[in-house]
Amino acid sequence: MTDRIGVVGAGLIGTSIGLALSRLGDEVLLTDVDPARAATAAALGAGRDVVIESLGECDHVIVAVPPPTAPAAIERVLRLNDNLTVSDVSSVKSNLVREIETLNPRLSSRFCGGHPIAGRERRGPGAAQPELFEGATWVICPMPVTTDAARDAVVRLAERCGARTLVVDADTHDRVLAAVSHAPQLVASALAARLAAAGAGAPALAGQGFRDTTRLADSDPELWAGIAVGNATHVAAELRALAGALADVADGLASGDAGGVADLVARGRRARALLPGKAAAPRPAWARVGVVLEDRPGELARLFAAAGSAGVNIEDVAIEHAPDHPVGYVDLDVRPGAAPLLLDALRAAGWPAHRSD
Amino acid sequence: MTDRIGVVGAGLIGTSIGLALSRLGDEVLLTDVDPARAATAAALGAGRDVVIESLGECDHVIVAVPPPTAPAAIERVLRLNDNLTVSDVSSVKSNLVREIETLNPRLSSRFCGGHPIAGRERRGPGAAQPELFEGATWVICPMPVTTDAARDAVVRLAERCGARTLVVDADTHDRVLAAVSHAPQLVASALAARLAAAGAGAPALAGQGFRDTTRLADSDPELWAGIAVGNATHVAAELRALAGALADVADGLASGDAGGVADLVARGRRARALLPGKAAAPRPAWARVGVVLEDRPGELARLFAAAGSAGVNIEDVAIEHAPDHPVGYVDLDVRPGAAPLLLDALRAAGWPAHRSD
Repeated sequence: MTDRIGVVGAGLIGTSIGLALSRLGDEVLLTDVDPARAATAAALGAGRDVVIESLGECDHVIVAVPPPTAPAAIERVLRLNDNLTVSDVSSVKSNLVREIETLNPRLSSRFCGGHPIAGRERRGPGAAQPELFEGATWVICPMPVTTDAARDAVVRLAERCGARTLVVDADTHDRVLAAVSHAPQLVASALAARLAAAGAGAPALAGQGFRDTTRLADSDPELWAGIAVGNATHVAAELRALAGALADVADGLASGDAGGVADLVARGRRARALLPGKAAAPRPAWARVGVVLEDRPGELARLFAAAGSAGVNIEDVAIEHAPDHPVGYVDLDVRPGAAPLLLDALRAAGWPAHRSD
Repeated sequence: MTDRIGVVGAGLIGTSIGLALSRLGDEVLLTDVDPARAATAAALGAGRDVVIESLGECDHVIVAVPPPTAPAAIERVLRLNDNLTVSDVSSVKSNLVREIETLNPRLSSRFCGGHPIAGRERRGPGAAQPELFEGATWVICPMPVTTDAARDAVVRLAERCGARTLVVDADTHDRVLAAVSHAPQLVASALAARLAAAGAGAPALAGQGFRDTTRLADSDPELWAGIAVGNATHVAAELRALAGALADVADGLASGDAGGVADLVARGRRARALLPGKAAAPRPAWARVGVVLEDRPGELARLFAAAGSAGVNIEDVAIEHAPDHPVGYVDLDVRPGAAPLLLDALRAAGWPAHRSD
């Protein structure tokens, strides 16, 4: 027997959940305050669009609406039927949990907060992807009053979406997310905004590092204002810590002290090494082969065909874009023993390939 | 007749220049304070390793050493021969120009500063790539005393390396680079360092956004300390502006004001739109097709082969890594008219492909 899952909010996250579950054969009922958005999600295959009252027929309902409107939506769904359980996807958990805990335990015990750590700069059902949660961490934040059934329902949903679940209390979640998501988002925006202050010629001098560091700045202002305000205490503390660290470095530079900079860069590098790697299982370090391609149709296909003909398996690929230049640069990662084969194959096909690791 | 080019400093940049020019048939003479490093670069095909005195035979010498040692190296090379011209690759220009301008004009007039906006987190000759400068901007900073011959020599060298040159005065260069490179570098380090402060569970909650925003934090502490100190005034001003902007947002959040956050994110998004696109020539917006791949040998090759068999040209590819999960997600960009063909081809080959734009 498959689950019948309800989704409130047919944006990027809600629609992606609908797509992921529908693909597995679950029955998904979708609703949105904007019926056209729900209809779009339904047309994409994320489920059947219904009025919110119909979600009372569901086993579990996931509320995927902007944080400011989440508590009211959660309460409304909890009141539809005494048997269904509810979870959400909000990026901020403490405020929400506090509001839900004011409800009658008959309602609140059936709620378990959640947060899939996945997203894109683009929003809306058109940006949805059934694979959005594959390999992602889905944080589960049960309250003391939360029933096992409510917690198990969101764990099961998250796992069916391909995510790995992690149970964390709401305040810890918010404090950590301020450091790894909310503050970096605002810092990326602040860095990007400085480009406008740097003069008309500045964009031509911005390299790939600036692009990467400010990528998050393409995100939606209203969404992020809601998240930052919802997690105001932790985000403000994090921004102040960052502002303090940057001001300290500025003071050191003003007095000719290179030690503060070197220390900061060294600490950042050590901390970044804490990030989990691509794969959980140990594996050999790849060898890397670099090749330049003309930016014209068919070059990538020709490249992979040449690698395939040589019997070489490409483990990873990274394409570097050359702004304003019709040439692309590609790094191919392969098993170390395969690198000489790949080099020979690519050179035989006319590319100036070289070891780039 | 080909040029005879000298390179002082067989690190990432110097070796990459040597590789690029050697490939074009230029004669390249390489030297380094560490003979083993110069020998490595020579073995990679970047040129012939020689003692520094031999560079007097060159038409033009490029000094690619860490900023603190650049002025002395430049002066030493200028004294080798009254006919050769010299340029450098330092990320900071004003300090250097001031030092060179104290020299006899017989020496200083033959120097023209330069800065290729290209690099990698990794350093040393082993990380060098002949294509490192393809499509990059190479800033040229002539002094009033610089001869046309000296300026033309570095312009020619930059263009032979595939870069696009841009003449800018040294102070403007340093001010803009503080905003688009030096400050972002230190901000990435400061953000990464906060991960260590966020607790043992924090890395599992860091998503792709954190990885991108902190990528620069993998860089070398001593190198960046030298750059920041060399451009101390502009970097300190930039860090203070950023610290002020972040503190302002923190103050707004503490008083429940979402407007400051929304304004910052909106300004960042507008500024980021100023970055030049991938290609100079106008072109149609690509359609995007998303597909999930097993993280196993041959899948990418099979994917590109399927696209190629369908006669579809892949214009761009982006691979998203799922940490700790054996599944990869790939977005393929194609001409809009080709998207249905590609979808059919990929689905026929067994992949759950979908439109992802």
